[in-house]
Amino acid sequence: VGRRDASELHVVLLAGGSGTRFWPLSRSARPKQFVALAGPRPLVVDTWQRVRRLAPPSRIWVVAPARHAGRLRRLLPQLRQDRLVVEPLPRDTAPAVVLACEAVAARAPGSVTAIFPTDHVIRDPGSFEQSVRTAVAAAAQGGLVCLGIRPDHPATGYGYLDCAEPPSRRRAVAVRRFVEKPDAASARRFLRSGRHVWNAGMFVWRVDRFLAEAERVAPEVVLPVREHRKGRRGAWARARRVSIDYAVMERARDVRVVALDAGWDDVGSWDAACRLRVAAGDAGAPHLLLDSPGSAVFGSGGGRVVALVDLPGVAVVDTPDALLVVPRGSAQRVKEVVAELERRRRKDLL
Amino acid sequence: VGRRDASELHVVLLAGGSGTRFWPLSRSARPKQFVALAGPRPLVVDTWQRVRRLAPPSRIWVVAPARHAGRLRRLLPQLRQDRLVVEPLPRDTAPAVVLACEAVAARAPGSVTAIFPTDHVIRDPGSFEQSVRTAVAAAAQGGLVCLGIRPDHPATGYGYLDCAEPPSRRRAVAVRRFVEKPDAASARRFLRSGRHVWNAGMFVWRVDRFLAEAERVAPEVVLPVREHRKGRRGAWARARRVSIDYAVMERARDVRVVALDAGWDDVGSWDAACRLRVAAGDAGAPHLLLDSPGSAVFGSGGGRVVALVDLPGVAVVDTPDALLVVPRGSAQRVKEVVAELERRRRKDLL
Repeated sequence: VGRRDASELHVVLLAGGSGTRFWPLSRSARPKQFVALAGPRPLVVDTWQRVRRLAPPSRIWVVAPARHAGRLRRLLPQLRQDRLVVEPLPRDTAPAVVLACEAVAARAPGSVTAIFPTDHVIRDPGSFEQSVRTAVAAAAQGGLVCLGIRPDHPATGYGYLDCAEPPSRRRAVAVRRFVEKPDAASARRFLRSGRHVWNAGMFVWRVDRFLAEAERVAPEVVLPVREHRKGRRGAWARARRVSIDYAVMERARDVRVVALDAGWDDVGSWDAACRLRVAAGDAGAPHLLLDSPGSAVFGSGGGRVVALVDLPGVAVVDTPDALLVVPRGSAQRVKEVVAELERRRRKDLL
Repeated sequence: VGRRDASELHVVLLAGGSGTRFWPLSRSARPKQFVALAGPRPLVVDTWQRVRRLAPPSRIWVVAPARHAGRLRRLLPQLRQDRLVVEPLPRDTAPAVVLACEAVAARAPGSVTAIFPTDHVIRDPGSFEQSVRTAVAAAAQGGLVCLGIRPDHPATGYGYLDCAEPPSRRRAVAVRRFVEKPDAASARRFLRSGRHVWNAGMFVWRVDRFLAEAERVAPEVVLPVREHRKGRRGAWARARRVSIDYAVMERARDVRVVALDAGWDDVGSWDAACRLRVAAGDAGAPHLLLDSPGSAVFGSGGGRVVALVDLPGVAVVDTPDALLVVPRGSAQRVKEVVAELERRRRKDLL
């Protein structure tokens, strides 16, 4: 335990999940992390490159359902077969994180492990690395460390971490409490306080410390996962379907936070994807956008030319079997489109 | 001459031309009349069905460039091989009309012939037939008869016919003069006058009368066309490139007009195409238009589903290699898209 293991950081990437917010480019069989939302490559590939600054392939683990294995191997040729941890069924993040940490602990019980989603954008990988190094040092001393995003607007769509003092990139500070998605007035107060950061679902801890805390506060997750690892059929399905935040982090001892100011974006909708594309000066070559500022074209690379005229702030999403055109301000309504396709029993498009 | 020949009406359909206003569904090799703009079938097919009320296939002629011959045979299986009159090169409408009328005259010199564009919509074929019958009777007596559309708004995009008295569907009235596209104030005055109708490029005349007038006022068209018919190489290219209105009708004697109130629409842009589709209750099944009234989806039938959210009054035009999204009010700007593709040397898309 301690310095040596801690310098050997392990990384766990969470590549499960599914969603409807990026239809038609993302589908039930191809969730958001497999889509090139913010740049030319799928988000999971950007994530892999980013964490390669932190660890060699031998210490990078990916948790995902079996149906993503082929795609992960194609996209991440450096991913080692024995570092792919298969979730038998989706059970939210807590069982997946516990499963991966048990796998890491079996090889390197005292090691520090960092947990990252694979469907976020981080524009400044250098700053990201710096925050992670700070978090690793704090984790080596026993803390369960969250990376917290300093808010730049009073978002009501994220959970917040209320810290004992203003968080920093250079040292970990104690978390006082987890706050669920706040109302607008609370969000404005949090923004002014300087003590609140967004919970981005990125964690760094010693696996032994984490598993001990998890077993204490969430045995309904940990025990079925351990039985599953022993080969007990049906055990996985008994693990509680719950998020890692709710199941463990909100109840754990010695939870700390390190600030992350690295151009983080969780790319929550086509609106956000357009914002990122436009900011990157990439509205989608070779397309032809005539007086359509703030618009962007997303496609599966079929080589079609899209011409957009006098349509500012619109997302065009072009796939072989479905096309979406939506103003950025209406991006949330994509789920209504998906619901309508479900009503029409168009499983082929979902 | 007279009653017998006149009852044997010949019809000439003008199927040449090209345009950029319906890109990307219409292309240089596939002009507007070959596109299903207003309904499920290409406009040329609707036109054929409409004129079949007036004449059997043995008396329906089609003038078109050779490159459209294959498509015409496919779309119009009843078109007789020897009724397809080939334009060697596009030279506007005057040479094409003279060429077709010479061909008709060679078979039935005293017959009445009606000339129709193939890229217009006429919603009421019964009323159309009635106006044509009136025109045929007037033409049998020697008049060169225009079908004139009674204006329902002060359009500045059409030429007008200024008539000696208010035009009617039941009898032909004399045309006083042809008026080029007017300014807005004149167009309002014309609308109020009751004596002005739009020139829709539809004519009915005895071919002998027409050819005599054409030879008198436009020998620079008629003589090269006759030489071309005799097999003189290069003669066609010497025919003046000019419209039939300008070359002949504006100068001819005994020009008359019969009113046409048959739901005529020249479908001048994607705006008009949307209007027709929406009026027909066909926004483009199986597409999914969410809070997008007045919008319509046009496609080449590839079976893709288009989802449009919160975008009222937008045309979506979906083809295998190019996609256009344009608000109806910006439909005129499609030509800028085409110009930009020309600059980019994307001949494959034009």
